[in-house]
Amino acid sequence: MNDLENHPLYKIMHPKNIAFWGASSNPMSMGSIQLSSLLMLGFEGQVYPIHPRDKEIKGLKAYSRIEDVPEKVDLAILVIPTTIVADVLEDCGKAGINRAIIVSAGFSEKEGDDGKDLQAKIILIAQKYGIQFIGPNCIGVVNSHIKLNTTFNPYEASAGFIGMASQSGSFITQMFGHLSKFGLGFSQAFSLGNEAMIDLCDCIEYLALCPETKVIGLYIEGIRRGRFFLEVAKKVSKIKPIVAYYVGGSKAGGRAGKSHTGALAGPDRLYNGVFNQCGIIRAQSIEELFDFCYVLGTQPLPKGNRLGILTHSGGPGAAAADRSERSSLELSELAPTTLEALAPLLPHTASVKNPVDLTFARNLNDYMSTLPRILLKDDNIDLLFLYTLMPQQRVMQGVVESGQGSEQASQFVHAYIKEQAAAAADLLSEFGKPTIGGTFCDRSELFVRELQDHGMTVLPSPERAVTALGALCRYARWRRIFS
Amino acid sequence: MNDLENHPLYKIMHPKNIAFWGASSNPMSMGSIQLSSLLMLGFEGQVYPIHPRDKEIKGLKAYSRIEDVPEKVDLAILVIPTTIVADVLEDCGKAGINRAIIVSAGFSEKEGDDGKDLQAKIILIAQKYGIQFIGPNCIGVVNSHIKLNTTFNPYEASAGFIGMASQSGSFITQMFGHLSKFGLGFSQAFSLGNEAMIDLCDCIEYLALCPETKVIGLYIEGIRRGRFFLEVAKKVSKIKPIVAYYVGGSKAGGRAGKSHTGALAGPDRLYNGVFNQCGIIRAQSIEELFDFCYVLGTQPLPKGNRLGILTHSGGPGAAAADRSERSSLELSELAPTTLEALAPLLPHTASVKNPVDLTFARNLNDYMSTLPRILLKDDNIDLLFLYTLMPQQRVMQGVVESGQGSEQASQFVHAYIKEQAAAAADLLSEFGKPTIGGTFCDRSELFVRELQDHGMTVLPSPERAVTALGALCRYARWRRIFS
Repeated sequence: MNDLENHPLYKIMHPKNIAFWGASSNPMSMGSIQLSSLLMLGFEGQVYPIHPRDKEIKGLKAYSRIEDVPEKVDLAILVIPTTIVADVLEDCGKAGINRAIIVSAGFSEKEGDDGKDLQAKIILIAQKYGIQFIGPNCIGVVNSHIKLNTTFNPYEASAGFIGMASQSGSFITQMFGHLSKFGLGFSQAFSLGNEAMIDLCDCIEYLALCPETKVIGLYIEGIRRGRFFLEVAKKVSKIKPIVAYYVGGSKAGGRAGKSHTGALAGPDRLYNGVFNQCGIIRAQSIEELFDFCYVLGTQPLPKGNRLGILTHSGGPGAAAADRSERSSLELSELAPTTLEALAPLLPHTASVKNPVDLTFARNLNDYMSTLPRILLKDDNIDLLFLYTLMPQQRVMQGVVESGQGSEQASQFVHAYIKEQAAAAADLLSEFGKPTIGGTFCDRSELFVRELQDHGMTVLPSPERAVTALGALCRYARWRRIFS
Repeated sequence: MNDLENHPLYKIMHPKNIAFWGASSNPMSMGSIQLSSLLMLGFEGQVYPIHPRDKEIKGLKAYSRIEDVPEKVDLAILVIPTTIVADVLEDCGKAGINRAIIVSAGFSEKEGDDGKDLQAKIILIAQKYGIQFIGPNCIGVVNSHIKLNTTFNPYEASAGFIGMASQSGSFITQMFGHLSKFGLGFSQAFSLGNEAMIDLCDCIEYLALCPETKVIGLYIEGIRRGRFFLEVAKKVSKIKPIVAYYVGGSKAGGRAGKSHTGALAGPDRLYNGVFNQCGIIRAQSIEELFDFCYVLGTQPLPKGNRLGILTHSGGPGAAAADRSERSSLELSELAPTTLEALAPLLPHTASVKNPVDLTFARNLNDYMSTLPRILLKDDNIDLLFLYTLMPQQRVMQGVVESGQGSEQASQFVHAYIKEQAAAAADLLSEFGKPTIGGTFCDRSELFVRELQDHGMTVLPSPERAVTALGALCRYARWRRIFS
């Protein structure tokens, strides 16, 4: 067994089979909903619902006691009333189950001592039987690559590369739809809840080893093991980027976090110091967290921070330029040879400086391929942002009005957009310089879908794209200094 | 005639008929594309294409000279080579046309003197004939309420309430799709280009009078008449909110703006001073501009800045709380009577403080109606943010699994979601306190569509929603002091 398989989280994320407490004949109970998601995604291992009375749940044979299950079980999932968690955990231990996810809430996140005592009790039981568990007060985990989704929302994203550890279950489960809007998905994701046993640090260590994870995202309300966090994150940042969204830095955020998962927050200044020391890139919203993960998980490390901007629209170009300075990027001076190469390809109204603004694309082929190639060849450019827009309806209209029949035109437009997207996506591998697109369109537009599915990173506005490139440069600088 | 109809922009935005230069039998020319958009939206006045050779363009009779057009024309649109603009404008003047939109570029935005000279020349011609024109180097205008769209993108948004004046045509035309994602639209919108004659100030004055416009959005690269801008904006802000996105404050943004429209930018500090003096709310991105316009155009002015947060998900609640402090909002202490009223409705895991976090909604009916009503009754709450999520698939699954046939279930779910949305939307009129929703879902989800179409403002993340509420409070404070 290698480091990955030896890690306590490995078996939680790769269970051969699962015993499930809390699903029942009531389809609206939280347990039933979570079991539904699990089955819906098509988990291939055996699932054993445990229920005192029901004999069959969602088409699966149910068992009244764990002892009756005919084989050794890898993972227990508990979605049951707070008061019986300790007993069931004890049963798990006796049955030789040593991995669990405890979804039930009402532990240390509650005011008063009762919840804290109960949490201490389940930790003792776990230690007695050598059980490693996630939670309590969590929503579960996702390993999209083996179709494991123990949360209560159906997993609708792809099997992706973002490894996520979150102190909020919502920022796992309610992000499935958000990620799918970019063609993205989680590789593996953890809702950590109260972190009675498994915490952020464990997840970072594990995700560093996980081969499908290219970037690690963290949602943080408070860090429990400060010193160890620093040590682990610093080590991991040298091999994989870590992006964190921290909401505990304001008084209001800190208080809300405390009653949510019982985490202790610290002021922004302190956390910024920690993040800077260990190369963690801080995001300012959940949207930004995933924007950053998208870019850091797909782009090579740039050699410097000199940005080239290519646009056919002045406003988006100016917005990108403005944002680049606010994100510590530098707008490159273009080399004389670049200016020479560009000039004959641009209309007379165009601006031949950086941003390169065509004002109106004379030739779409140039725009997605010839022009960015000229810019990427320039040694003064470390990264490229391409404002992009190729609405199917508009291209289609042009072709139809040129006299083609609508079916033929539709085929032509599809083929044309695919070809353009493929050419643009090739830029990254050809030049090895970060090259991303930005547009106000989304995946309902063919060209966005094609670009993203061909491997080009496209974000939904110039400002968001450039801000994410700034984050990439900050990470690259840290790596240059500390790796 | 009232002030509105007397305003020089009124006839540009309400032409009875249009003479159009630059459309031709070549469907891919910019002029042809712009004429297409105009016809596609269904402008009801007569359109007269003017072309030296073509006899018919897009099914319309074309005229070789403006003198041949059989009636007096209100508005000329010029999408023609730079070199012939002056002559055509002269022709317009002779034909008694005194309103024009000059799309052609290559004027003062170009380096060197030629473009500037040419621009001075067309201004002289306009003055000679009493022509008021927009541009040059612009994309045109939209008046959605009379189906007027002279830009080159088809208008796909609704007839809305956002009046926009933009120094970038893209931030008009490329925003149609963005706005439609929220069920929003422009009332009237101007792409200003080089502002040789009509500028931002004129638009602000006009939009203040426009009855369909509830909020004014500005995209600014540089202000040309500083003193007058201050005077006009200050007056208008007292009756309608103005939101501005300014990109000229950084060196890079300032340079990009200059080569885009020739506007002279100033440092952020100066512009912030101007904005603060005249009650203009500054946005930091184009997304944020429209988020702010959405909230400022739909919500009443709050009496104070004390925010209530209702959530069923801890993470989004904590994120909203954190963002509220960063947006100068205060998380209200709930009154004892509020706590008493809430307690019996919440599960034992819930957090009964602000944010009110249900952790799991026991009863969806309570969530969208009873619970927010309790919070809105509290005198300590000036505004309410409601994190909201009601995915159709999830509700549907529950109903189907409860034993209903899928068609019956579908009807039930549709009716149920509509009813919930209507109840939530009623909160605003019932209490007169700003009440907005936030969710990571979009209008592809029935509940988002229903909420928005019933009149509830819903933004695509808790952070964006709370940030926009912060902007609303800043504006309300300015109004309290200066109105």
